[in-house]
Amino acid sequence: MQINNQHYRTIWLDQDSPKEVCIIDQRQLPHKFVIEKLVNLDDAITAIKDMHVRGAGLIGATAGYGMYLAALNLVPENFDQELEEAGELLNRSRPTAKNLKWAVDRIISVSAEVTGVENKIERIKEEAAAIADEDAEFCRRLGQHGLAIIKELSEKKNGAPVNILTHCNAGWLAFVDYGSATAPIYAARDAGIAVHVWVDETRPWNQGAKLTAWELQQENIPNTLITDNAGGHLMQRGDVDMVIVGTDRTTYTGDVANKIGTYLKALAAKDNNIPFYVALPSSTFDWQTAKGSDIPIEERDGTEITMVSGLDRDGSQTTVTLTAPGTHALNYSFDVTPARLVTGLITERGVTPANEQSIAELFPEKRT
Amino acid sequence: MQINNQHYRTIWLDQDSPKEVCIIDQRQLPHKFVIEKLVNLDDAITAIKDMHVRGAGLIGATAGYGMYLAALNLVPENFDQELEEAGELLNRSRPTAKNLKWAVDRIISVSAEVTGVENKIERIKEEAAAIADEDAEFCRRLGQHGLAIIKELSEKKNGAPVNILTHCNAGWLAFVDYGSATAPIYAARDAGIAVHVWVDETRPWNQGAKLTAWELQQENIPNTLITDNAGGHLMQRGDVDMVIVGTDRTTYTGDVANKIGTYLKALAAKDNNIPFYVALPSSTFDWQTAKGSDIPIEERDGTEITMVSGLDRDGSQTTVTLTAPGTHALNYSFDVTPARLVTGLITERGVTPANEQSIAELFPEKRT
Repeated sequence: MQINNQHYRTIWLDQDSPKEVCIIDQRQLPHKFVIEKLVNLDDAITAIKDMHVRGAGLIGATAGYGMYLAALNLVPENFDQELEEAGELLNRSRPTAKNLKWAVDRIISVSAEVTGVENKIERIKEEAAAIADEDAEFCRRLGQHGLAIIKELSEKKNGAPVNILTHCNAGWLAFVDYGSATAPIYAARDAGIAVHVWVDETRPWNQGAKLTAWELQQENIPNTLITDNAGGHLMQRGDVDMVIVGTDRTTYTGDVANKIGTYLKALAAKDNNIPFYVALPSSTFDWQTAKGSDIPIEERDGTEITMVSGLDRDGSQTTVTLTAPGTHALNYSFDVTPARLVTGLITERGVTPANEQSIAELFPEKRT
Repeated sequence: MQINNQHYRTIWLDQDSPKEVCIIDQRQLPHKFVIEKLVNLDDAITAIKDMHVRGAGLIGATAGYGMYLAALNLVPENFDQELEEAGELLNRSRPTAKNLKWAVDRIISVSAEVTGVENKIERIKEEAAAIADEDAEFCRRLGQHGLAIIKELSEKKNGAPVNILTHCNAGWLAFVDYGSATAPIYAARDAGIAVHVWVDETRPWNQGAKLTAWELQQENIPNTLITDNAGGHLMQRGDVDMVIVGTDRTTYTGDVANKIGTYLKALAAKDNNIPFYVALPSSTFDWQTAKGSDIPIEERDGTEITMVSGLDRDGSQTTVTLTAPGTHALNYSFDVTPARLVTGLITERGVTPANEQSIAELFPEKRT
């Protein structure tokens, strides 16, 4: 990914001080590009919970490195148990995110394969890096599979720009690199296909306005910011050719938990015969949960709705209150789009219809 | 309507200075309650265009009084033509609003019925007042018709609060009094029926967050602010019993233009078998237009999306920029909900299904 024409990932071990993990503090974007260092488990939990980092893949990668930071400070006699406890704490930081528990389980599992605290720590460090590398590689691959879909639409339009609507940020900022929803878009750009992205601003946290619009700008992808309310109207006008979103957890039957409001866009896409795709590395599948309604939905503080931050006239980051004193706000972070509204799931192994049998055929080793 | 326990309308002639029109500057709400005086046509146009006043009925009433203010300053020799020109200028200030042209035409029509400039001005003044009075009275009446629907839901729920979702502000702030979507809610409250309102914040202008939540608070109606993204999820959870919205223009076939995002809520209501009602005084019907797609949709400045204003920590009204420099935003203000998604239209004459024949039966004199 490009930031001011320099290549970055969203998380990495400090070169000079390999017991520290570097992240980009996404709360400061797009106004300030701030690299933050995480030095212990608490830092990692805070970074996830308070959304210094966010997004399916990056939460997973941060959990992996968070376990590594935890491991560095565990009591040797009680290493395994304390590692599990660290994992529990991480798991609780964002309840809907599937990649979190997936990464935690993966670290605990590799740690159990070796003996001796030093060996365990080394193995955990390797695995955290492997989780991050794999996230980037799977996103790169799913981008290639999504590219085929965009290419077909482009040919139908005789090369006119393909208008892609996305919700929230499932870009490289949400993963280690490439992104999920954005990977096909970057692949299309690299293949010389004209694309234009409609960016839902994504209330209340404004991931679209603050992150996706900026990320696409950094990559020179033409994009237009819209309110979350506007997508249906644009679809009715014929101004949307396809929707691609990410997901925080997808059941093995194809129900998709993603940022609140995704369901509304899926309904509008269906009503206007517009293909609605969900892009995900397989780490985001929940192989234990059948029904989307069984996915825990995170509820965050109402002040994320009543207060908004941005740059004031003097260029200082300022928070303003929109509402009258005493206004009560309810803030669910995710909703579930039922599989029936999903045209296809774009994964690192290919594109599959969103149903149990097709998903199982693509990931046969996950059959339960 | 109640503001700080005192009765107000949203527009009135100054008692002491009857050549001045008083409005509440809604841009200042909910932080400041500011009464603004309009003294000429330009003031009225600015008030409508820059949204000091907004909402179907109030735009109509302001247009009526705007014509009166214009009439006060016209060249007597050229009165009729200049009055028409004033009407043209008013009509252009908000293209989607039906009540605007309706009020302008009504004023021009009554002016033509009398001779002599003084008589004309007096007649226009009376008619502007009649438009305002009628708006309040029609809203009161449609509230009674909507009450019956809420009452039935309340009985089904054995008196548990009826959860009503609304989008934008179709409250008394959008009319002269009572409101359209809110009139049945106030009528239910007066009838002792427990209600709770889900208030869509309504980006980009935040009419829900700034106006509806405040208006309901002033009336002691329990309400909860949510993002525009949240309604679908709440419906899936069973937390919404009905939707009531207003409209800026409804075709004689029942297609409903309303604040952008309304269509998405109608889709979600349909998908979850939740009744979706539109409340309107008949002045909002467009008796000339058949298809919703033929309604002109206003496009406003993109800075309404990229910049947000509220109170800073010191209590000063401050505008902050959410986005990176160079972010391009597109800002359509309305969308069209097709009649097939509308359960019923609540009018001053009763509730009607949203189709040409039923609407024509309720308003037979409008048959074309």
